[in-house]
Amino acid sequence: MFASMGYAVKFVSVTNGDAGHQTEGGGALAKRRMAEAKEAGKRFGVEYDVLDNHDGELTPTLEVRLQIIRKIREWNADVVIAPRPNDYHPDHRYTGVLVQDAAYMVAVPNVAPDTPPLKKNPVFLYFQDNFQRPNPFRPDVVIDITSVWDKKVYAMAAHQSQFFEWLPWIGGYAAQVPTTSVDRLAWLSKRLAEPITDEILKSLEKWYGKERAANVKYAEPFEICEYGARPGTDEIKRLFPMLGK
Amino acid sequence: MFASMGYAVKFVSVTNGDAGHQTEGGGALAKRRMAEAKEAGKRFGVEYDVLDNHDGELTPTLEVRLQIIRKIREWNADVVIAPRPNDYHPDHRYTGVLVQDAAYMVAVPNVAPDTPPLKKNPVFLYFQDNFQRPNPFRPDVVIDITSVWDKKVYAMAAHQSQFFEWLPWIGGYAAQVPTTSVDRLAWLSKRLAEPITDEILKSLEKWYGKERAANVKYAEPFEICEYGARPGTDEIKRLFPMLGK
Amino acid sequence: MFASMGYAVKFVSVTNGDAGHQTEGGGALAKRRMAEAKEAGKRFGVEYDVLDNHDGELTPTLEVRLQIIRKIREWNADVVIAPRPNDYHPDHRYTGVLVQDAAYMVAVPNVAPDTPPLKKNPVFLYFQDNFQRPNPFRPDVVIDITSVWDKKVYAMAAHQSQFFEWLPWIGGYAAQVPTTSVDRLAWLSKRLAEPITDEILKSLEKWYGKERAANVKYAEPFEICEYGARPGTDEIKRLFPMLGK
Amino acid sequence: MFASMGYAVKFVSVTNGDAGHQTEGGGALAKRRMAEAKEAGKRFGVEYDVLDNHDGELTPTLEVRLQIIRKIREWNADVVIAPRPNDYHPDHRYTGVLVQDAAYMVAVPNVAPDTPPLKKNPVFLYFQDNFQRPNPFRPDVVIDITSVWDKKVYAMAAHQSQFFEWLPWIGGYAAQVPTTSVDRLAWLSKRLAEPITDEILKSLEKWYGKERAANVKYAEPFEICEYGARPGTDEIKRLFPMLGK
Amino acid sequence: MFASMGYAVKFVSVTNGDAGHQTEGGGALAKRRMAEAKEAGKRFGVEYDVLDNHDGELTPTLEVRLQIIRKIREWNADVVIAPRPNDYHPDHRYTGVLVQDAAYMVAVPNVAPDTPPLKKNPVFLYFQDNFQRPNPFRPDVVIDITSVWDKKVYAMAAHQSQFFEWLPWIGGYAAQVPTTSVDRLAWLSKRLAEPITDEILKSLEKWYGKERAANVKYAEPFEICEYGARPGTDEIKRLFPMLGK
Amino acid sequence: MFASMGYAVKFVSVTNGDAGHQTEGGGALAKRRMAEAKEAGKRFGVEYDVLDNHDGELTPTLEVRLQIIRKIREWNADVVIAPRPNDYHPDHRYTGVLVQDAAYMVAVPNVAPDTPPLKKNPVFLYFQDNFQRPNPFRPDVVIDITSVWDKKVYAMAAHQSQFFEWLPWIGGYAAQVPTTSVDRLAWLSKRLAEPITDEILKSLEKWYGKERAANVKYAEPFEICEYGARPGTDEIKRLFPMLGK
Repeated sequence: MFASMGYAVKFVSVTNGDAGHQTEGGGALAKRRMAEAKEAGKRFGVEYDVLDNHDGELTPTLEVRLQIIRKIREWNADVVIAPRPNDYHPDHRYTGVLVQDAAYMVAVPNVAPDTPPLKKNPVFLYFQDNFQRPNPFRPDVVIDITSVWDKKVYAMAAHQSQFFEWLPWIGGYAAQVPTTSVDRLAWLSKRLAEPITDEILKSLEKWYGKERAANVKYAEPFEICEYGARPGTDEIKRLFPMLGK
Repeated sequence: MFASMGYAVKFVSVTNGDAGHQTEGGGALAKRRMAEAKEAGKRFGVEYDVLDNHDGELTPTLEVRLQIIRKIREWNADVVIAPRPNDYHPDHRYTGVLVQDAAYMVAVPNVAPDTPPLKKNPVFLYFQDNFQRPNPFRPDVVIDITSVWDKKVYAMAAHQSQFFEWLPWIGGYAAQVPTTSVDRLAWLSKRLAEPITDEILKSLEKWYGKERAANVKYAEPFEICEYGARPGTDEIKRLFPMLGK
Repeated sequence: MFASMGYAVKFVSVTNGDAGHQTEGGGALAKRRMAEAKEAGKRFGVEYDVLDNHDGELTPTLEVRLQIIRKIREWNADVVIAPRPNDYHPDHRYTGVLVQDAAYMVAVPNVAPDTPPLKKNPVFLYFQDNFQRPNPFRPDVVIDITSVWDKKVYAMAAHQSQFFEWLPWIGGYAAQVPTTSVDRLAWLSKRLAEPITDEILKSLEKWYGKERAANVKYAEPFEICEYGARPGTDEIKRLFPMLGK
Repeated sequence: MFASMGYAVKFVSVTNGDAGHQTEGGGALAKRRMAEAKEAGKRFGVEYDVLDNHDGELTPTLEVRLQIIRKIREWNADVVIAPRPNDYHPDHRYTGVLVQDAAYMVAVPNVAPDTPPLKKNPVFLYFQDNFQRPNPFRPDVVIDITSVWDKKVYAMAAHQSQFFEWLPWIGGYAAQVPTTSVDRLAWLSKRLAEPITDEILKSLEKWYGKERAANVKYAEPFEICEYGARPGTDEIKRLFPMLGK
Repeated sequence: MFASMGYAVKFVSVTNGDAGHQTEGGGALAKRRMAEAKEAGKRFGVEYDVLDNHDGELTPTLEVRLQIIRKIREWNADVVIAPRPNDYHPDHRYTGVLVQDAAYMVAVPNVAPDTPPLKKNPVFLYFQDNFQRPNPFRPDVVIDITSVWDKKVYAMAAHQSQFFEWLPWIGGYAAQVPTTSVDRLAWLSKRLAEPITDEILKSLEKWYGKERAANVKYAEPFEICEYGARPGTDEIKRLFPMLGK
Repeated sequence: MFASMGYAVKFVSVTNGDAGHQTEGGGALAKRRMAEAKEAGKRFGVEYDVLDNHDGELTPTLEVRLQIIRKIREWNADVVIAPRPNDYHPDHRYTGVLVQDAAYMVAVPNVAPDTPPLKKNPVFLYFQDNFQRPNPFRPDVVIDITSVWDKKVYAMAAHQSQFFEWLPWIGGYAAQVPTTSVDRLAWLSKRLAEPITDEILKSLEKWYGKERAANVKYAEPFEICEYGARPGTDEIKRLFPMLGK
């Protein structure tokens, strides 16, 4: 969405994906994953970096925290998005912890002194998830992505080994994966679509007004992390210009 | 309870218990603890394994996570039970974290490739505790253990150095420990008994009906962890056949 | 407050502060910070220790946990106060985790056997913070510090490099820092003052009665940590004699 | 050689081999390697265990040391053979360090208390290598393996992905690998054969007498590690009964 | 020398130098050191990279090994030079270990799969040192650097905080450091000059012939590390074209 | 010897001895060991500190290095003595490494900034051992301890659990340990006595002259470590005044 509006966007994978597959693995798989990520980045029109940490072995070490701090700084990020520290996959949970631990420190000059610090703490957002404990996700900001949904699905589809091989296998629905590219896009679109819950609708109405909110088919909700900058309404509108004013 | 119904059950202690004692310690204590665990296993009619990690020094490392993943896989577990990551003892909290981190990964073939992965993610349950922050324990499933209570107490009593020496000492009630075996069983029964709270009663009524629930004297409540398989009512009844249908 | 009533109080900084500054750093900064801490201790009339761990690099290791266990034991502490494991700075969050992990273990003789264990688990308290997730701070006990407020501000002002240099710089309000000592005290007093919220007022009323509570200008609220001793009302009054009876 | 004389022999690979290949990797490669190791074990008539540590990432940690201590104890080993801590591959060097660090500790009861300690420190031997710094390998004991050489080559050939794929690729001689099994055995025999140096010959003469020594075509030399038991001549003859008397 | 012949040379500092100074430290010092390194690189006509690891805290971890592997690969190095694992400073010793551990692995594709492996193992050389235990440095190759000596001294002099502040202070000869730039160069030239020992002379004669060897005033000797490629005489002459033929 | 001449001497045990015993262990054993160390210190007339690190688990971490740096600094040591990094026990080897890694760093102000650095690098010595690889011990300095031998034996005998229980058990000579104190002293004297080898005699002659050297019955040889200060003959005589002049 941002990318389609001309903003500079960077995706970062905190692990190299060298474990999440049923028949491949190691550096060979990591290289396939990296190529898929580069293709996804091309389709999105964004940069896509991969940190070379083992998949399935992420722990919240200082080393990885510093990798993340440098990536955020090099990008001079205004907004950083990460999973919450609760998710079904430990790598995702620890990515959440690591990004929390990078917040604020990105502005401290004596930390990672080889990379100039940010002038100010960015806004840190959490991706949506459905976990309830210790507390559920809260859709503080919701973006209408209806107009770019197909593009998003197409870009995500570049992660072939992930969406058409590994996740269906581990999820027990490998038999459902279509064989043609066209069918796969339609199928992936259905899998990725999340329902517009009442809570999300309410947030959409807040940001877009009742009328437009009613017409949103695909939405991307975010929760504002308390450890980053805490933007007020105006600041949120400045950061997310697609919200209108 | 499971064991008495003919199911295969395995207990695993994540540490070797080599620190929790007022006068003994180290390998000597670990060996005593292991013998007590084996005896408890015999009384319960279950297997009882001890992972050789220092007591009081558990941290959520990849090494211990992999130990736990292998144990769960070797047992081909349908259900895994662990403490929540909040408890008075850091080893218990980190056991909770470690078991969470083992969930899902037990089904990933490239993780611990020396041990065949599970076909599917088991159900992960939390033991009951009374901690309220960040959120209290929730008795999703409660098992009536009235009929096996005495057997449970007898089996637990095999952990002599724990229940009759260390815990009374550190808890300041060493003077209350009776001297004869018979008195100790009665005393331990009282110590281990947890009240049937309103919330637990409600869950018992859900699973057993009002009538039987009213007669339950001893109950074992569990919370379903969000990172394992999420069983519906039918699946829960299949996994816990003692619940009746 | 305690100190002014003749109680023995010790402050411990878990890191050496060698990173939090815009132009200085390393051992040179650590030494300046230590001198400031000693001066603050003198003004408070308390001991002030600094653990020599890198600032901005704290992780919840066993090594640091043991450092903290020894400090608590050497002091024979009745009450231990720490940040909650949620705060904007990762060092503060992990201090919260580390102190939680020290609770209970301070009484276990086989842990850190070079330092005699405490006879009983102290009361562990959390400092106030404003973070809401996963759950907000709860002012279980609130102390009226109106009478010692000026003294507290004066003592805190000893942390010059912190309050008049680093925090204003990173917070973007360096231009507001006054130049004279007198003006700095007045300015710091305003910065440090926290509003008496309704919830804090209610707690003040519980402990001091309505009348006195209404006159409190400066208060220090604490939440009781569940992993330490859980004091009842009488025990709290014994531990905090300033609460009256 | 030992195996062919009816002695119980166990091979242990300290890593799972999941990195050493030009096109495969991860758990998938580890499983292939494990199958090859089992086949090699079968051909040798020995047990062959694989410790599930990442290939190319071995460091001399306490965790791996304890794995090795348990293996040595479970096998009740009289003799343990390992690379010297100098070799071209860091995993080999650290295996040397780890086995040195396991020596003596295998007899200490409080170390790895879940596994009964050995009654006495075994003899630790180093495999031959050609590194000169800081000091060259010394052939303290040399075994005439002429009679079992073909069997050894056949057993080693079970490590297909190692000897016919990876090592030729990384060594730049992939083009020389023959295609038929028979040719591969002949080719591997030549590659594995090490010259009988003057120093080795001298040691052979010491243990076998001049006459037999002169007829040895294939020999396996070992250096006695100073951290294990230090066998005298008689003890060496008892441990290596093929040496004659 | 190489640089002056038009070869591409890169210097890498494995730590950021944030500790080695008597009055400065941390990120502030690291930044000064980095600027000095860049200036030195400019004077030498080479690239100069600094790895952001704490000075005085280097240990041979996998993380730093991988940093070094990536640097060697990115540079597509033919020759890598490092200290031996014996030296007065632990950071130097562990740099020696780390570079040894990077040798060979730079050619393994599954290691650091984000960076294309080298086609072949480079030649690894050790810098000269005077330590005798466990074995002395051996000048396998010696380069006549007489013609570039002044340039080298001038380039080294860019490390101001090192050569004119820190090393004189810790070495107890701070009073001898001259004040003007010109005097400092002359003084540094004397400090950096190492005598041409008999052993070095012999090596010079081998590579340059007796006549030229006799006229060498400044020489740079290297020992060939056994874990890298082992160049023969011709290969050495190809790698060091200044040796003549 | 030093102590009996009025010099201030401190012994430091780098581990707490909580593993080296056949029937005891953990904190309980550590406390017994600490009491024995204090008693030994009293008999020697020296301070005796124990660092609380697990016995049998020492690795050369930064944390333990810093503990050792602080001990050396607090004592303002002129001479530091440690085992060589080759010895039968991994804890001894890593103590050798750790003390080497503390050398020089004890004088660096930014390392462990909470403890004032030494003005100069002390002399580091190695204790005698009999290991030959990679190079044998070299008796650079040998002290005649004949006159204090009985006192030394008496002081060592304070390590009861070590010399009369553990070492005899693990060494297989438990049956030889006498029962009375007097007999034990005589027996220990014999066990601790090391022969005056030709090499030691030569060193004795160098330092004491032929005549006195011939009468030495008990000697303590040391090797000078290359990473500490390198004393000349005069400096050695100043540091070891018992050598005469």
